[in-house]
Amino acid sequence: LPRFDAERLKKIGTDIFVALGTPKRNAEIVADVLVKANLMGHESHGVAYFIRYSDRIRRGIIDPKAEPEIVQESSTTALIDGHWGFGQLTANKVMEVAIEKARTSHISAVGACHCNHTTRLGEYSMLAARRNMIGMLFANVPFHGNVQPYGAAAGLLGTNPLSVAVPTEKMDPFFFDFATSAVAERRVTLAAARGEKIPFGWIVDKNGNPTDDPTDLNPPNSTRDEDRGRLLTFGAAAEGQGHKGYCLSILVEILGGILNGSGSLVANDVRQSQNGLLAIAIDIGSFVPAETFKKTTDALFQRIRQTPVQPRFEHDHVLIPGELEWNTMGKRLKEGVEVSESTWREIVNVATELGLKVQSDI
Amino acid sequence: LPRFDAERLKKIGTDIFVALGTPKRNAEIVADVLVKANLMGHESHGVAYFIRYSDRIRRGIIDPKAEPEIVQESSTTALIDGHWGFGQLTANKVMEVAIEKARTSHISAVGACHCNHTTRLGEYSMLAARRNMIGMLFANVPFHGNVQPYGAAAGLLGTNPLSVAVPTEKMDPFFFDFATSAVAERRVTLAAARGEKIPFGWIVDKNGNPTDDPTDLNPPNSTRDEDRGRLLTFGAAAEGQGHKGYCLSILVEILGGILNGSGSLVANDVRQSQNGLLAIAIDIGSFVPAETFKKTTDALFQRIRQTPVQPRFEHDHVLIPGELEWNTMGKRLKEGVEVSESTWREIVNVATELGLKVQSDI
Repeated sequence: LPRFDAERLKKIGTDIFVALGTPKRNAEIVADVLVKANLMGHESHGVAYFIRYSDRIRRGIIDPKAEPEIVQESSTTALIDGHWGFGQLTANKVMEVAIEKARTSHISAVGACHCNHTTRLGEYSMLAARRNMIGMLFANVPFHGNVQPYGAAAGLLGTNPLSVAVPTEKMDPFFFDFATSAVAERRVTLAAARGEKIPFGWIVDKNGNPTDDPTDLNPPNSTRDEDRGRLLTFGAAAEGQGHKGYCLSILVEILGGILNGSGSLVANDVRQSQNGLLAIAIDIGSFVPAETFKKTTDALFQRIRQTPVQPRFEHDHVLIPGELEWNTMGKRLKEGVEVSESTWREIVNVATELGLKVQSDI
Repeated sequence: LPRFDAERLKKIGTDIFVALGTPKRNAEIVADVLVKANLMGHESHGVAYFIRYSDRIRRGIIDPKAEPEIVQESSTTALIDGHWGFGQLTANKVMEVAIEKARTSHISAVGACHCNHTTRLGEYSMLAARRNMIGMLFANVPFHGNVQPYGAAAGLLGTNPLSVAVPTEKMDPFFFDFATSAVAERRVTLAAARGEKIPFGWIVDKNGNPTDDPTDLNPPNSTRDEDRGRLLTFGAAAEGQGHKGYCLSILVEILGGILNGSGSLVANDVRQSQNGLLAIAIDIGSFVPAETFKKTTDALFQRIRQTPVQPRFEHDHVLIPGELEWNTMGKRLKEGVEVSESTWREIVNVATELGLKVQSDI
């Protein structure tokens, strides 16, 4: 695959969003979040969204001029109205307000409504970790969910991800960021586009049977609902523990969709691309000195890394959550970001249509 | 199996703990939590602990006279010292203080140290749900963990459970309460005691191989560490999603063991039976009217229950987390609680040794 410098990708994304009416500073933030997904190894959440968001702006789903606004607040809580602007701006604001409130009140919870697609939640939970806080972020995905409740034979729930980030002393910060479905839907569609198989346990086909064919999720030759497969909640295939991912999926639906009034899957007015958010920030120094906490966290991670590794494990040591992403980012900042030729051509086309002069060579 | 009235079990547990020096009111609380585990279908966390706790009191692990105490607090946070009394009392206190603080400050986080084994966390998260709050509880288990980090070939982490409870309008409250290991260790030892097989995906044997033999975890004919198997984190066997339970296990270790200074697995002074706790309470009315929240939660659960069920699913409808427990409790309150003959004999023996007059008939 052709490789691109991250700054070059960021610039073209910024230029596209500015050309579509986005204030420069906001366009930079959104482009940065998307490029960072590629840098961290999550291309399913990366620069392909330059294209999709351009389309969503044109269709009125994303308002490129909207700024998120605090519409309700106390010393420890707030509600943010994203006014259907870029979800990245709303998610940033949610976590920044949560951090501000936790700084004076030790712990805070901030919700958001009218929020568009936010991509990688880890981007925002990490904002708290950089300020010596534990950051948690929950996002429901209420529109036409195709994740199957545990024991069900139909899709209903969204991929409902959550993320937590924790600061460290010398090691890379701990974070995770995952869908409560087996995987994010984009990983299945990406495999389908590449003609690859997927592991059993990610989806079932239209008849509820296990399958490793990613095209069973959204068959290319049909648009009928009854022909679609469903995503499983994570761990669903495992006997006696299969309900656990399902429990977390419902929790995220409640925190991200009901507690903040944003809209759960039972609401009538949820939109494609909608995420409802709840952020929690905990100021570590309110419990124990932050330095002690970070030293101990490092010691825990060192101890985990010293555990002997399984013979067939794909890495040479046990990984700390987030480690793979930090390593991938370091590598890709130097070596560049791989983007498929077709995605690059589409990005160039969008830019050219907008009258931008783009160096289109690969 | 012989059946017993829940009140009869509660009385014998209370009498045993009182005879061992526990104030009556506290003994009642502990016995009630343990019997409720049986009522809800979790015998692995039930009345067998009458015997184990008696032993722990005699060995000085549990101080039957200790009362948990607030040792640090702000308007939104607190630290509780359990003084190595019954973990049930400390866990109750942690959640009660969290509820009190969330009532005035909207959200709170309360930690606990010097806390003994707490059994079912759902007991305490439900205290918040009964007061129109969302209750979360995290408990690390730092002593000699035998849960294998994802990709590792050795045990290290504890079973590190978490629980969340959410109030509803007319339906039973939502709660879940699960180990971040595939299952709680007691479910494996219980299967071993009963001579039953366990599903693959719960444990690996001493060589790291999948096994359905529960005695591979702690082989009865050896006490050597190198002969023991390990528990897996939940969902660990599932490709591409196997790290998720592991991420949550580490998070619980950090929240329950490091943030509150209670002691993580890298501390030198952690004890058998130790749990470190962190409770978070969120006052729903600080975000949306509690009535609206509860109505919408009911609607969500109704919608989930209407999803068609899988042909081979063991229930006739899709279950809401907690539903099975509430139903089991309703049934067992009427029909009695099954206790194995050997466990009952042991309980009667402990009581008799303490000079209690027990009706020992089954």
